[in-house]
Amino acid sequence: MGRRLSPEGGIQMSDAYNKGEQLLMDTYEEGIKGVLANLSELSPHIGRYIVEFFGQVFTNPLLSFTQREMITIAALTSLGDCPGQLKWHIQFGMKVGLAPEEIIELITHTIPFSGFPRALNAISLAKLVFEELGIQIAIQDELLNAGNIRETGLAKLQEIDGEHGTQVLESLAGVAPVLADQIVDFTFGEIYSRSLLDAKQRQLVTLASLTAQGGCEPQLRVHIHAALRVGLNEQQVIEALLQCYPYTGFPKVLNAVSTARQVFEHQK
Amino acid sequence: MGRRLSPEGGIQMSDAYNKGEQLLMDTYEEGIKGVLANLSELSPHIGRYIVEFFGQVFTNPLLSFTQREMITIAALTSLGDCPGQLKWHIQFGMKVGLAPEEIIELITHTIPFSGFPRALNAISLAKLVFEELGIQIAIQDELLNAGNIRETGLAKLQEIDGEHGTQVLESLAGVAPVLADQIVDFTFGEIYSRSLLDAKQRQLVTLASLTAQGGCEPQLRVHIHAALRVGLNEQQVIEALLQCYPYTGFPKVLNAVSTARQVFEHQK
Amino acid sequence: MGRRLSPEGGIQMSDAYNKGEQLLMDTYEEGIKGVLANLSELSPHIGRYIVEFFGQVFTNPLLSFTQREMITIAALTSLGDCPGQLKWHIQFGMKVGLAPEEIIELITHTIPFSGFPRALNAISLAKLVFEELGIQIAIQDELLNAGNIRETGLAKLQEIDGEHGTQVLESLAGVAPVLADQIVDFTFGEIYSRSLLDAKQRQLVTLASLTAQGGCEPQLRVHIHAALRVGLNEQQVIEALLQCYPYTGFPKVLNAVSTARQVFEHQK
Repeated sequence: MGRRLSPEGGIQMSDAYNKGEQLLMDTYEEGIKGVLANLSELSPHIGRYIVEFFGQVFTNPLLSFTQREMITIAALTSLGDCPGQLKWHIQFGMKVGLAPEEIIELITHTIPFSGFPRALNAISLAKLVFEELGIQIAIQDELLNAGNIRETGLAKLQEIDGEHGTQVLESLAGVAPVLADQIVDFTFGEIYSRSLLDAKQRQLVTLASLTAQGGCEPQLRVHIHAALRVGLNEQQVIEALLQCYPYTGFPKVLNAVSTARQVFEHQK
Repeated sequence: MGRRLSPEGGIQMSDAYNKGEQLLMDTYEEGIKGVLANLSELSPHIGRYIVEFFGQVFTNPLLSFTQREMITIAALTSLGDCPGQLKWHIQFGMKVGLAPEEIIELITHTIPFSGFPRALNAISLAKLVFEELGIQIAIQDELLNAGNIRETGLAKLQEIDGEHGTQVLESLAGVAPVLADQIVDFTFGEIYSRSLLDAKQRQLVTLASLTAQGGCEPQLRVHIHAALRVGLNEQQVIEALLQCYPYTGFPKVLNAVSTARQVFEHQK
Repeated sequence: MGRRLSPEGGIQMSDAYNKGEQLLMDTYEEGIKGVLANLSELSPHIGRYIVEFFGQVFTNPLLSFTQREMITIAALTSLGDCPGQLKWHIQFGMKVGLAPEEIIELITHTIPFSGFPRALNAISLAKLVFEELGIQIAIQDELLNAGNIRETGLAKLQEIDGEHGTQVLESLAGVAPVLADQIVDFTFGEIYSRSLLDAKQRQLVTLASLTAQGGCEPQLRVHIHAALRVGLNEQQVIEALLQCYPYTGFPKVLNAVSTARQVFEHQK
């Protein structure tokens, strides 16, 4: 493959650039060309950094492309103020293999972590992308038996979070028992009990949503434990956090990695 | 009342759903129908969660509807990236009894906590809503006597925050005395001294603005103390934090509740 | 100079107001008139607060106008959700002496701290402003020798952060060595090694980006050390944090000042 995106033929680009260029040209040529064209006049260097990121981090096989785009779309949803980039990644996510239904589902999964408004805005963007691409899907409400929602939620909480989830509930018992009920019913009885994403995918989305917001270290601790519990390994957890840094910057990722290190040490 | 919003007549909806539906249909029928119509194709489940929230949390009598909408509008103002939802709640807030002047005033109250830009953007949205509804109001600058602003501010700080406010000023004395002056003059001499909202309402708005931003635990501590000081009880403080979770997600609310628990224990 | 912005001739405005008014009328008359006109109907008091801020804080000679606007543009870039105010300050920044290239460069400098999307959105706004003003600039990629990027980055990290930077790398060695490499290569090998801004300017931008986000206290600690190391004094560091409060609110600035106090005490 020739160098097709490089600004000038004579410049020796890094290996990361060349790998990123190949990936992007193979999957979403018009998308990356659009990004670089917008940057060409005032900030071609930023275009290079972006391509290098894809070559350097994105191609690491610890996580699949679809896992990485789940993380990215979740991080951008929870950041909330980057609709242009979120739209780009909804398109790119489908290019690398995410189903439209999976995109809606992972956005839905961010609701307990970063609230309804940001999820609603992300779904509006997804709807726009689907319409532009002529994609028609209809998603039904997976209405659970409301009578058993508490029971379903408690079982799911135990499955995902184990003792760390129970500790959260206990810490709320004296001060905000209604909040404990809401978390059991809504987060675990409803959201975690939905189909379409498995437990590992849900934990990747959770880590991304918490990392992107910042200041959620106690919840990151619980959910890094949960990520290991449902079968992700330590390297994959770290890799999920690394996938966030282009979108969040290094500080939030450094804080999340620091929390992960504490969890890993605690497990030994 | 018949079930007018349920997606299908045959589905047995939860009690929370039925209560929420009745509330929303009685207060803002076109608003909730618009929300649900937007969600109908790709995420009817999210529409159900929203209606259930109104039935479950919103109707709890610990806080009034107008107090809840003050909290919600403040949280959305300080989140900053959810203009669609903020506009909806400015409209809904008026439906449940907030005066346009109160909406402007509560947005003004967020300035010391989340800055001018987000408040200015919220006021622009409010202006738009008022214009669409043909509401004409004119608000005068309540210009205080600039010569006494320090004195006014110190008295108001003492009234609201008590010793906890004094401690903040003392902690700044050695390192940033100008900042201490600015907080006294601006936050307390100007903002807290304005009319239209009482001290309880101002503390509800403050708690919402701090919770929505995340990472403001030291300030939450001071202002939860202040909330109790001006006459809100512990249950109302917790309820104010719970009112935030649909907009902020659970993690920020869990961190705020954890801070509240520490304050409550410290008071005993 | 007559009082040209005051809402009513008969009102006695504060000295801060008068100083702020003079500064703003002398530098960006149409800009401040636009802001105040938008606020005149519903919130003239907020217009007064804004003018007073310029008179009170902005005119303090501890930092120059161009330094203050670098801080402001960086804070608004990293806040991410205030495009209207960011656009205003890109225009105002040029009025007080920032070159268009410096604006692009300071936005570029925020990438490692608050991510690509917010920087890309800020650059799009800058591009729009430049087009409206008929400003044509072309910026070349400062492509460093990729073979030496690690070496360049380590030297620059040592120069800026000293032992505190080394400690960050060491803390990552066991858990996320790739992240350490990325920070060395990208943050220091690329971004900090670019021309157009000097080390002091870069630290002011860094402090603003970290303060605006909140929750980045560990990184603030490292970079307040670095700010002192590259030649800013303690008063200037505090002043840089104070410059942020109109855009971020007091809580984030209080937390940053608290971190600064710890750094200052640690140095003694």
